[in-house]
Amino acid sequence: MSTWGNNFRVTTYGESHCRSVGCIVDGCPPGMVLTEDDIQPQMTRRRPGQSAITTPRNEKDRVEIQSGTEFGITLGTPIAIIVRNEDQRPKDYGASTMDLYPRPSHADYTYLEKYGVKASSGGGRSSARETIGRVAAGAIAEKYLRLAHNVEIVAFVSSVGNEHLFPPTLQHPSYSTNPKFLQLIEKIDRETVDTFAPVRCPNAEASARMTKLIENFRDSQDSIGGTVMCCIRNVPTGLGEPCFEKLEAKLSHAMMSIPATKGFEVGSGFGGCEMPGSIHNDPFIVAPDLSVNGSGDGIESKKRLTTKTNHSGGIQGGISNGSSIYFRVAFKSVATIGHAQTTTAYDFQEGVLEAKGRHDPCVVPRAVPIVEAMSALVIIDALMAQKAREASRNLLPPLPKSQFIKPETSNGR
Amino acid sequence: MSTWGNNFRVTTYGESHCRSVGCIVDGCPPGMVLTEDDIQPQMTRRRPGQSAITTPRNEKDRVEIQSGTEFGITLGTPIAIIVRNEDQRPKDYGASTMDLYPRPSHADYTYLEKYGVKASSGGGRSSARETIGRVAAGAIAEKYLRLAHNVEIVAFVSSVGNEHLFPPTLQHPSYSTNPKFLQLIEKIDRETVDTFAPVRCPNAEASARMTKLIENFRDSQDSIGGTVMCCIRNVPTGLGEPCFEKLEAKLSHAMMSIPATKGFEVGSGFGGCEMPGSIHNDPFIVAPDLSVNGSGDGIESKKRLTTKTNHSGGIQGGISNGSSIYFRVAFKSVATIGHAQTTTAYDFQEGVLEAKGRHDPCVVPRAVPIVEAMSALVIIDALMAQKAREASRNLLPPLPKSQFIKPETSNGR
Amino acid sequence: MSTWGNNFRVTTYGESHCRSVGCIVDGCPPGMVLTEDDIQPQMTRRRPGQSAITTPRNEKDRVEIQSGTEFGITLGTPIAIIVRNEDQRPKDYGASTMDLYPRPSHADYTYLEKYGVKASSGGGRSSARETIGRVAAGAIAEKYLRLAHNVEIVAFVSSVGNEHLFPPTLQHPSYSTNPKFLQLIEKIDRETVDTFAPVRCPNAEASARMTKLIENFRDSQDSIGGTVMCCIRNVPTGLGEPCFEKLEAKLSHAMMSIPATKGFEVGSGFGGCEMPGSIHNDPFIVAPDLSVNGSGDGIESKKRLTTKTNHSGGIQGGISNGSSIYFRVAFKSVATIGHAQTTTAYDFQEGVLEAKGRHDPCVVPRAVPIVEAMSALVIIDALMAQKAREASRNLLPPLPKSQFIKPETSNGR
Amino acid sequence: MSTWGNNFRVTTYGESHCRSVGCIVDGCPPGMVLTEDDIQPQMTRRRPGQSAITTPRNEKDRVEIQSGTEFGITLGTPIAIIVRNEDQRPKDYGASTMDLYPRPSHADYTYLEKYGVKASSGGGRSSARETIGRVAAGAIAEKYLRLAHNVEIVAFVSSVGNEHLFPPTLQHPSYSTNPKFLQLIEKIDRETVDTFAPVRCPNAEASARMTKLIENFRDSQDSIGGTVMCCIRNVPTGLGEPCFEKLEAKLSHAMMSIPATKGFEVGSGFGGCEMPGSIHNDPFIVAPDLSVNGSGDGIESKKRLTTKTNHSGGIQGGISNGSSIYFRVAFKSVATIGHAQTTTAYDFQEGVLEAKGRHDPCVVPRAVPIVEAMSALVIIDALMAQKAREASRNLLPPLPKSQFIKPETSNGR
Repeated sequence: MSTWGNNFRVTTYGESHCRSVGCIVDGCPPGMVLTEDDIQPQMTRRRPGQSAITTPRNEKDRVEIQSGTEFGITLGTPIAIIVRNEDQRPKDYGASTMDLYPRPSHADYTYLEKYGVKASSGGGRSSARETIGRVAAGAIAEKYLRLAHNVEIVAFVSSVGNEHLFPPTLQHPSYSTNPKFLQLIEKIDRETVDTFAPVRCPNAEASARMTKLIENFRDSQDSIGGTVMCCIRNVPTGLGEPCFEKLEAKLSHAMMSIPATKGFEVGSGFGGCEMPGSIHNDPFIVAPDLSVNGSGDGIESKKRLTTKTNHSGGIQGGISNGSSIYFRVAFKSVATIGHAQTTTAYDFQEGVLEAKGRHDPCVVPRAVPIVEAMSALVIIDALMAQKAREASRNLLPPLPKSQFIKPETSNGR
Repeated sequence: MSTWGNNFRVTTYGESHCRSVGCIVDGCPPGMVLTEDDIQPQMTRRRPGQSAITTPRNEKDRVEIQSGTEFGITLGTPIAIIVRNEDQRPKDYGASTMDLYPRPSHADYTYLEKYGVKASSGGGRSSARETIGRVAAGAIAEKYLRLAHNVEIVAFVSSVGNEHLFPPTLQHPSYSTNPKFLQLIEKIDRETVDTFAPVRCPNAEASARMTKLIENFRDSQDSIGGTVMCCIRNVPTGLGEPCFEKLEAKLSHAMMSIPATKGFEVGSGFGGCEMPGSIHNDPFIVAPDLSVNGSGDGIESKKRLTTKTNHSGGIQGGISNGSSIYFRVAFKSVATIGHAQTTTAYDFQEGVLEAKGRHDPCVVPRAVPIVEAMSALVIIDALMAQKAREASRNLLPPLPKSQFIKPETSNGR
Repeated sequence: MSTWGNNFRVTTYGESHCRSVGCIVDGCPPGMVLTEDDIQPQMTRRRPGQSAITTPRNEKDRVEIQSGTEFGITLGTPIAIIVRNEDQRPKDYGASTMDLYPRPSHADYTYLEKYGVKASSGGGRSSARETIGRVAAGAIAEKYLRLAHNVEIVAFVSSVGNEHLFPPTLQHPSYSTNPKFLQLIEKIDRETVDTFAPVRCPNAEASARMTKLIENFRDSQDSIGGTVMCCIRNVPTGLGEPCFEKLEAKLSHAMMSIPATKGFEVGSGFGGCEMPGSIHNDPFIVAPDLSVNGSGDGIESKKRLTTKTNHSGGIQGGISNGSSIYFRVAFKSVATIGHAQTTTAYDFQEGVLEAKGRHDPCVVPRAVPIVEAMSALVIIDALMAQKAREASRNLLPPLPKSQFIKPETSNGR
Repeated sequence: MSTWGNNFRVTTYGESHCRSVGCIVDGCPPGMVLTEDDIQPQMTRRRPGQSAITTPRNEKDRVEIQSGTEFGITLGTPIAIIVRNEDQRPKDYGASTMDLYPRPSHADYTYLEKYGVKASSGGGRSSARETIGRVAAGAIAEKYLRLAHNVEIVAFVSSVGNEHLFPPTLQHPSYSTNPKFLQLIEKIDRETVDTFAPVRCPNAEASARMTKLIENFRDSQDSIGGTVMCCIRNVPTGLGEPCFEKLEAKLSHAMMSIPATKGFEVGSGFGGCEMPGSIHNDPFIVAPDLSVNGSGDGIESKKRLTTKTNHSGGIQGGISNGSSIYFRVAFKSVATIGHAQTTTAYDFQEGVLEAKGRHDPCVVPRAVPIVEAMSALVIIDALMAQKAREASRNLLPPLPKSQFIKPETSNGR
């Protein structure tokens, strides 16, 4: 179904050629300042053609809040958001070869198998426009997380084809042992990432390599994939629900629901399989930074544990441990290519499907705000679940003191 | 929470030192032959120490069906299953160093942060015994899938540390282009996999390399991780729900909810990011095998499309396309090691945590039945959702004939 | 939250003074003819002021389908519907006494307690406009049910104040023993009900009594409540899920979620408590009408059981038994009255709250299409759940013949 | 399905002739003292034959906690509970007339229609033993509510057949205007209710009338129904979620899911339909009792509003307003009677179904603890949802002061 989340629940709608696309966000905390200006920037970042953004204001994909706020304040009731489609009419059938052939590695075939009805756009909800509702909802979640816990979510392109920002080496089979990587994810922000437009890989040299590779694929009318890395800082401890709603499981689910994804790894990831336990284990230390969750907001700090290394990627036993969360998502090459492709039509006749028009040789940079949006939706839902638990527990009479009973749950402010 | 699935809904319970562990399976189709003998084999396969299984019958972890069947037939009502714990008493606090230190890369610390109460086993539900309920429920799902659609689910160990069954090469950056791999996943069965016990890698040479590596880590009182590959054959087309419940997203969620997982990739996976679209796209062909889903049950076959290659891993646009599904799951090295570890205690004092007793240097082989179980739970839930849609649609009056309206949904028998 | 249903899932949004109200319907079966003309009639029936409808076309509350259909055919993807608000601006605070007082028996006070933010309309989502999304979604569900199973849903006003269509008597403490009532619910249709506008009680004499009563309350600037009876015919057997999703429990939930409801009874209802078991039990007979569910569509009929009486109201053990379902819903008198009311302000000062403008003395007739809509949402969701079960079961190999194993589930066509 | 609740989630299992019945409670707040002694009393109250309880300890239906606690403290993980069945073997088919006839107004027929498989007990999960899991889970919820908010839940029998505790009169068409009733629900406790065993109607005169009536029905081998009234005191304001999860809608759903229920009314109920708005509206006053929710625990009290009358039954706009909640549930007469009944067999032959053995002529008194249990499950789930909202909101920066922004949500302690 098209619903995500239990506490902060998002339902999206819309395909390519209908009147509008959008979402309903149910469960947003009341009393938060929120206007369309909080949402539009991420919407604009996901638009095609960002590299050509030179006008200060891109009028396309304008967000319209329909409900759930008054005078710029959230009421706590469902927030409906719509974004009008420019091309609102479904195409007549029979006008193009797309009506004869299921496009290879698109969703035309599987949608017809599933629904028994073919949308004029072929793959119906598999359209990239489906992600608009996610990005809008994610921007709301993100604003809350920033205000409430100073949570920072930043994604960037970590590879295009075989050009990597941090290529795996014998010394560093996984990102998780590479000091440069670990420093980067503690500092990087979106402004810096966008400086490296259009590739959004925050390193001049790597960005140049990637740009060149993309240009090659563009020139050969082909396409190429890549990976997006995402880090989430200042996540409070205790988020993630055993056993089926572990935080990494929800993140993985969220990321693998983005179109064109083929893989997900968190912390040490696949490389971590090759590290002995004696190295992979993250020993505990006393946190050097006494601020709670790095929020630096003058709240009285408490002495607390943290881990010396972070192979776990900020999650242990499915629950956030307060360290930075980081994960990587694999995106396959775009299925729409300029090449002619030999394939078979719905009527079982083999033939050649020609592509027309222009296509984007690498959509990985545009996936960056979508990865951020889905991250925000996962974190806010887990946060609200944990808040319900903590608040419920804090109403109980205290238990006899013991080393193994915490006097009250404490990850809030 | 501890619930999985919408139509075939599993709720698990239990930790290490309580009376029992188990699950309730709600929504199992009625009228299926089911006894404990259908469930016990996978339960036995997940037990520790399978390599030493020489007695014909291992009496441990015996499954007891509590409800939902009569005379060996499912009633359609909730099936409760319990497996008694041998050690039913929580340990007294203060008896071991484990009470002083949160064990590195275990869930002791995060569980205490989350719940404010420390279970005597440390990580509560992060215990490996939590997976018993999953395996029991998965065995029921699997039986249904086999009877109804001849679905076959087989997992095996594809790497231990840096010893791989199919090491990535320049020619084959992804499994998805390797003919030997593609042949293997169409044929492999569990009996063959278990022939290669205890490693469960179905290749003598690779199995030997892995065994040796594990022995090295055992001897050095260390641990090592690895990957499990899983293939699912004969999945009908049309399974998986856009946009948040894409089939690969649910599989990823399911796998990343298994303890100690760090990564997931489906089809071409991370390697697929490096393949151009012109190669990665799976062209359509007429299916050479006319049997529907290979069920070979005498039902009249229909001419149908399939893909020539299978970089997609059997899923396109989040929906199964009838080809074999395959994916790989990364497991980190076990956190329990024989090494002493310098870490910090709950009271902020640095110290040395000694391990005692024996530990298993590599649990990846034991993860094989768990991966299979979670696969079955994902597929059956998606199947029932699609059955509801198909059956609902088939009650509607037919639409005017058109190339783009299928006369009736047809992936069932 | 604002979501209803598992298989046919409706999410609504909107309050009085925002841009629009509406809903997203997720899970509608694909391949159904659907346009705005299927939805508008019920929307118009719920409008205020129907008694004055003389123009053939009421242009207010126009439904706009945003997505999920192409060329008038449902795609199976989410159907978003919006209805624009005429008054899109929240009122400034301080302009009226409503800003000083929580209105008695409105939701102003509880919404402020719940959300900590006061919507300008007072009760936010408690506005009657919230029901627009329900009615739109219900119209879609209803169309499906009619096409697929010839299900007929008809509600009407059964009492206003103490004026009853069928007053309880010593002989008939419950409707369920009254032959006139039982005949009525087998025949009544919406066209007939609307003949008795504005009261919508399908009996000239009772309608006149009720009209007079409403006029009295209007003249005295007061308000009065009443009850709505609803019957659902041709519901297939087997709908409703034990144990928490019994069909009557879902109907009750649905009805009691409509604003201003105070009670629900099904079948014999409260009067049934006074009937001995020897009378209340519904004996089985062979169904005189051999058509399956009265669908009369030429499908071969099967001999089947039905009940001689219908005190059960068409539901036994939480599951539909094929007889007509009927239930009654109590609506309190409208809280907005012309009387001045002594009450207490937010600042704890007692005072007098004057009402202004006109109000509707009895909204029960307008509740009729809302009751029908919620009924449709309950039935379609239960139908799709049962279809998933039946279709799943029908894929299993047949069991040995026995009197107590049905060869295949059979409530479909 | 057999799952209730989102935050405090209960899944039940079991029928009459399986090994055990029970439930899994997921989401119970951690850190609460809980042993079987907290659960057993309500379990014993729901047992048949309480009137004969003379031994201090009834050894039947013993609760066994399987998981989720250690040393008598909840861990926050799933609490599994089992109660063994005495008769664990399904009956052989053909041994009784019950195998030939679907019993009138039992669930034998509808279960067979739904599942296509007949349980030996006839109606499978419609067995009264299904309620054991509810009562166990409710006892846990109730303990939490009492500890956290001093919530008190007390149900009692308000009518048997046509013998009422408070018969409706012209002066008091609804309970809600009757001062004696309103006083009773503020004071009544379970101990007092049980004093009036076996009828559980807390008034000597009414209890005597009811007892006599039941005896008459027992002597004539017939059965009779009745109603249960339930009051819930000290519920914090703000519970209940618009628009589909209104508090009265959830209560209604919960009650109507109890076997044999036919109706539900809250506050003024059906009688309230006959009261003019000018009387039905509940004006606000300053609460005379300054303690927050009557908790009397020394916490600083706040001046607050309450209502002068309580026709609303403690809920306005679907949200609790802090006043006592009260509602009434209708139970039909028991379907099992001593009379022979003419009915029709599965093979369509009319015949006479004889009853054997003893039966209980009125089960309404035994429904009392079940109504209490379901009430507790509704309230705790709504409470935790609201706690998540409040706690989330309280993390936001404060808004500019305004009369219509509460500085922080405050219904907790």
